[in-house]
Amino acid sequence: MKIAIVMGSDSDWSVMKSAVDLLKNFEIDFDITVASAHRTPEKVKNFVESSEKNGAKIFIAAAGCAAHLAGVVASHTSRPVIGVPVSSEPFKGLDSLLSTVQMPSGIPVATMAVNGAKNAALFAAEILATSDETIFQKLVDYRKNMQNEIEKKSADIKKLAHEK
Amino acid sequence: MKIAIVMGSDSDWSVMKSAVDLLKNFEIDFDITVASAHRTPEKVKNFVESSEKNGAKIFIAAAGCAAHLAGVVASHTSRPVIGVPVSSEPFKGLDSLLSTVQMPSGIPVATMAVNGAKNAALFAAEILATSDETIFQKLVDYRKNMQNEIEKKSADIKKLAHEK
Amino acid sequence: MKIAIVMGSDSDWSVMKSAVDLLKNFEIDFDITVASAHRTPEKVKNFVESSEKNGAKIFIAAAGCAAHLAGVVASHTSRPVIGVPVSSEPFKGLDSLLSTVQMPSGIPVATMAVNGAKNAALFAAEILATSDETIFQKLVDYRKNMQNEIEKKSADIKKLAHEK
Amino acid sequence: MKIAIVMGSDSDWSVMKSAVDLLKNFEIDFDITVASAHRTPEKVKNFVESSEKNGAKIFIAAAGCAAHLAGVVASHTSRPVIGVPVSSEPFKGLDSLLSTVQMPSGIPVATMAVNGAKNAALFAAEILATSDETIFQKLVDYRKNMQNEIEKKSADIKKLAHEK
Amino acid sequence: MKIAIVMGSDSDWSVMKSAVDLLKNFEIDFDITVASAHRTPEKVKNFVESSEKNGAKIFIAAAGCAAHLAGVVASHTSRPVIGVPVSSEPFKGLDSLLSTVQMPSGIPVATMAVNGAKNAALFAAEILATSDETIFQKLVDYRKNMQNEIEKKSADIKKLAHEK
Amino acid sequence: MKIAIVMGSDSDWSVMKSAVDLLKNFEIDFDITVASAHRTPEKVKNFVESSEKNGAKIFIAAAGCAAHLAGVVASHTSRPVIGVPVSSEPFKGLDSLLSTVQMPSGIPVATMAVNGAKNAALFAAEILATSDETIFQKLVDYRKNMQNEIEKKSADIKKLAHEK
Amino acid sequence: MKIAIVMGSDSDWSVMKSAVDLLKNFEIDFDITVASAHRTPEKVKNFVESSEKNGAKIFIAAAGCAAHLAGVVASHTSRPVIGVPVSSEPFKGLDSLLSTVQMPSGIPVATMAVNGAKNAALFAAEILATSDETIFQKLVDYRKNMQNEIEKKSADIKKLAHEK
Amino acid sequence: MKIAIVMGSDSDWSVMKSAVDLLKNFEIDFDITVASAHRTPEKVKNFVESSEKNGAKIFIAAAGCAAHLAGVVASHTSRPVIGVPVSSEPFKGLDSLLSTVQMPSGIPVATMAVNGAKNAALFAAEILATSDETIFQKLVDYRKNMQNEIEKKSADIKKLAHEK
Repeated sequence: MKIAIVMGSDSDWSVMKSAVDLLKNFEIDFDITVASAHRTPEKVKNFVESSEKNGAKIFIAAAGCAAHLAGVVASHTSRPVIGVPVSSEPFKGLDSLLSTVQMPSGIPVATMAVNGAKNAALFAAEILATSDETIFQKLVDYRKNMQNEIEKKSADIKKLAHEK
Repeated sequence: MKIAIVMGSDSDWSVMKSAVDLLKNFEIDFDITVASAHRTPEKVKNFVESSEKNGAKIFIAAAGCAAHLAGVVASHTSRPVIGVPVSSEPFKGLDSLLSTVQMPSGIPVATMAVNGAKNAALFAAEILATSDETIFQKLVDYRKNMQNEIEKKSADIKKLAHEK
Repeated sequence: MKIAIVMGSDSDWSVMKSAVDLLKNFEIDFDITVASAHRTPEKVKNFVESSEKNGAKIFIAAAGCAAHLAGVVASHTSRPVIGVPVSSEPFKGLDSLLSTVQMPSGIPVATMAVNGAKNAALFAAEILATSDETIFQKLVDYRKNMQNEIEKKSADIKKLAHEK
Repeated sequence: MKIAIVMGSDSDWSVMKSAVDLLKNFEIDFDITVASAHRTPEKVKNFVESSEKNGAKIFIAAAGCAAHLAGVVASHTSRPVIGVPVSSEPFKGLDSLLSTVQMPSGIPVATMAVNGAKNAALFAAEILATSDETIFQKLVDYRKNMQNEIEKKSADIKKLAHEK
Repeated sequence: MKIAIVMGSDSDWSVMKSAVDLLKNFEIDFDITVASAHRTPEKVKNFVESSEKNGAKIFIAAAGCAAHLAGVVASHTSRPVIGVPVSSEPFKGLDSLLSTVQMPSGIPVATMAVNGAKNAALFAAEILATSDETIFQKLVDYRKNMQNEIEKKSADIKKLAHEK
Repeated sequence: MKIAIVMGSDSDWSVMKSAVDLLKNFEIDFDITVASAHRTPEKVKNFVESSEKNGAKIFIAAAGCAAHLAGVVASHTSRPVIGVPVSSEPFKGLDSLLSTVQMPSGIPVATMAVNGAKNAALFAAEILATSDETIFQKLVDYRKNMQNEIEKKSADIKKLAHEK
Repeated sequence: MKIAIVMGSDSDWSVMKSAVDLLKNFEIDFDITVASAHRTPEKVKNFVESSEKNGAKIFIAAAGCAAHLAGVVASHTSRPVIGVPVSSEPFKGLDSLLSTVQMPSGIPVATMAVNGAKNAALFAAEILATSDETIFQKLVDYRKNMQNEIEKKSADIKKLAHEK
Repeated sequence: MKIAIVMGSDSDWSVMKSAVDLLKNFEIDFDITVASAHRTPEKVKNFVESSEKNGAKIFIAAAGCAAHLAGVVASHTSRPVIGVPVSSEPFKGLDSLLSTVQMPSGIPVATMAVNGAKNAALFAAEILATSDETIFQKLVDYRKNMQNEIEKKSADIKKLAHEK
């Protein structure tokens, strides 16, 4: 197991599914749990420690509102922690973003865009790829596919725009 | 000891001093420590647990930026937690405020104004006063003193405003 | 009667119902009224004074927009006042939050998250529990229940995430 | 006496002095007091009531942070209330502005720019001028003077800009 | 005719209807037009000038986005101008509010809450009432009616809250 | 070909269609493509260079979120670049606006309102009109048409407002 | 004369000086005035009209707070208008930016960064360069100079960073 | 060489120095350059490509305002890119943060707090440590040192707070 994912609430699953899908697509092993920094602090700590023992090299933490989860995970490990601020009512994720990214000196959290779950998984893959050439090649291919898709869409729009 | 105060950094002391002064003024016993939710999570947990054992009925937690401290304290106790968002660069405390106040359902943090340390101490006194008539009387007197001071200042301003 | 609840408008009921439900669940006696800081200032004052006479030890005030209600309640009592900023159009509660939390030195309002009605009731229970061991035990049980629920949801998500 | 001015704190005097100076310049009678919506609610109410009895037709209220003062004044009178949000730390008056302007339907507060004390006095004069031709003429002259001053400054800048 | 209303777009009518309804209810004569500060600057100027000739003592201006209309009206008259920032996509009226309220020294605009059209009409009535006792009495009655309505709603909520 | 349009995503087409419609209406030749500053940086650069060779005198770039596209286009050409921040979730275009407009000294991007695609096309026409009298006349006519439409809507509203 | 510059206040000169310096450096003829959209609306209109008669092809308008100036200039001309939001207290230019950029459909203002005066002049040069090859060459050279300066600074920093 | 650092301006050096110091302290090899996404796009691209050839596994990019630099670097490489939003006038880094973090799906940028240069270097070390046990041990030691320092400061504050 390489990547340990923790969500603050099961309602974050609709956002985090795209991260899981990408990891499966890249054939990267992961574990996942729901654990709240505030309601289950012991569970968070235990998950971090047992994940490290099971080989986790990277953590992904997703939460909304006063989104302390990524920071709390980072307080328990020196492994890279990637934070996904989840958009939530009423502030649309501004609170989630600031709570996740404005970490004090000494304890970094690598913050993605609000709801940026897929990018969290991609970034985790990029980290693994620093010492794994197979994953790096998958990343290069992934990007080429994106470029091809844009090329197709561009042709469609160009046609649409010049219609009379 | 009734009140346990924790600050995320020793630089928060300039803000929190007014809370300490008010508690001394009200002759309310307190303990105080510096402990960071991110850098010293174990210390935070230990401080909360030992404070409860030593009789602490209320916690005051002050932090800036991604201000997780009050929420982390609240995750370790069912006692009332009062949060003081500390103003910090560059967002002037907007991040501190949102990180402190936007707590999820189940784990409340009673949030004061940004830098509202004195009010945190006053509110702690109000909590104690729900079962301590002596403290309640001190609160009533404190308010009367404020009103008298305003009366004096008002007279000064009125004179100033009508000068030719 | 222990807790006096005041809402600025009957439209706040959909938010405040969860506070009332929790107090009933905890078997804590309360009174409730609709009174506007701006439209019925006398009613607010009278409600605060008669509630205190009837034994109210804690006030909960909920309002939206220029949410002055909690501050106005606090101006009439030295008892703890818990403020619930209610989300409202068009600013989604940013105005409600700032109007409720940014109280001047001397008159604290313990502010909850926007729409944080349930946490207001929980926090009121935490205050009572500082001198009532029965309520404290209910709080401890309440938290354990939350933790059990998360454990169940976590298992569901883990299964969902590893489906092929 | 035509205009009653109330400030939430004596520290607002540096902002409100320009309002007083303009009223003196326009020879409009005023009264002024310091009274806090939160610390001295009775004083605010008494000042509003006694001012009305003494002939006050318009109220100007200035406050910072959770700036409830103008709204509280408006809750006690059906006379026009002009609000001056005062810039304050750390939110630079965003809290003051939203607390002053976002009044509920039924109780208007005519809000000026943050620190817009002079405009509050000018607007009060505009109200009086709806039934006082002498004041209206002073307003017309005041505007002409502003225009002449701009003309002079414009000539200076034009020269400056074309210097080699 | 006493009150001249100008809207920046016909789409503002859904907001401004409540202002018109209140003026009719108070039997206050008004004129109304659609004129854009940016698309029809001459129309704005002509409307202001002809309204003044026809007896208008007060202007109400409503606009969204870069809401310059109230400021532009104020640039053409020394009569009181009441601004109504209209909520608009995507910034929900923050742009409208700041564009309306942050007027420079010398040219006040009395700003209402975002979409505060009814309060604009009420405030216009308050201005007229400074020299018209009949309108003042209507304002006093209007407020009493509001208070009675709240009393009724309060009783309903109280019953609802104590249901088992 | 005079105007080269580039969108960061095909989902921006619903916003940009109004720009294309206006250019067609003005009979101004354009080219259009979908190219992402982040996913297809080479395509952006090639489109800018080939467009310049094909006679493009002005660029219009539309993007959302971290909207770098207009800035990246401007980095590849000294021709005027007009930026259209596209509203996107969850920040409604505040991120798009700031990413587009806050360009460093030396590389201007002429920024339109969020979703201001039609104005981008109009502004491009205004630039061409500085050396093309036919287009200038179309702009003058366009504005007159707008004014006539407002006149009609104004009459409708006036009637509606005075209905009993 | 090619470029007409208007500032809302003589205090904007410290910001706008860099625009004037760049135009002089590029040997582009300009006129400049101080005129306020609110205090001197007639002066703004006359300046726009007389500038057009004197050959002005482009307008640059700079203002702070409720920054209506660029929009008002645009309401009087179909020539390109470039807006410079000027940073001002207390909102640091957020009000200036939104007031300048959020123009309604039909009347574009090409908005620069807050205090982006130099870029306004550069963009004006870019517009002129669409039909003036000499100016275009100056723009190309200007950019090359910027690149050379960065190269030098980069070498300095590299040395500094590797010092022991 | 393991880490390639790029700053948008030499003025970012005062912020980035702490990143360089930490890398030296950890004895991690780095290269550094000044290159602007807007003024020197070719230099950015060349630096990314040559750094990759020289063995760079991780990029750190720091910029302010419309901070496109990290995104532009990420557009040229599939290696991990860490973004440091630099605080800048007048928006204090809100624009820098949103421009850096709100990346579209497919191209992640791991964003640190505003001015979080030291954390960027620490996070880069954490990435390297996923396949380098020596660096991992340095990270563990670094954290222990932080904890010891806090312990000392805590003792000082405790003494200070209890002084009479």
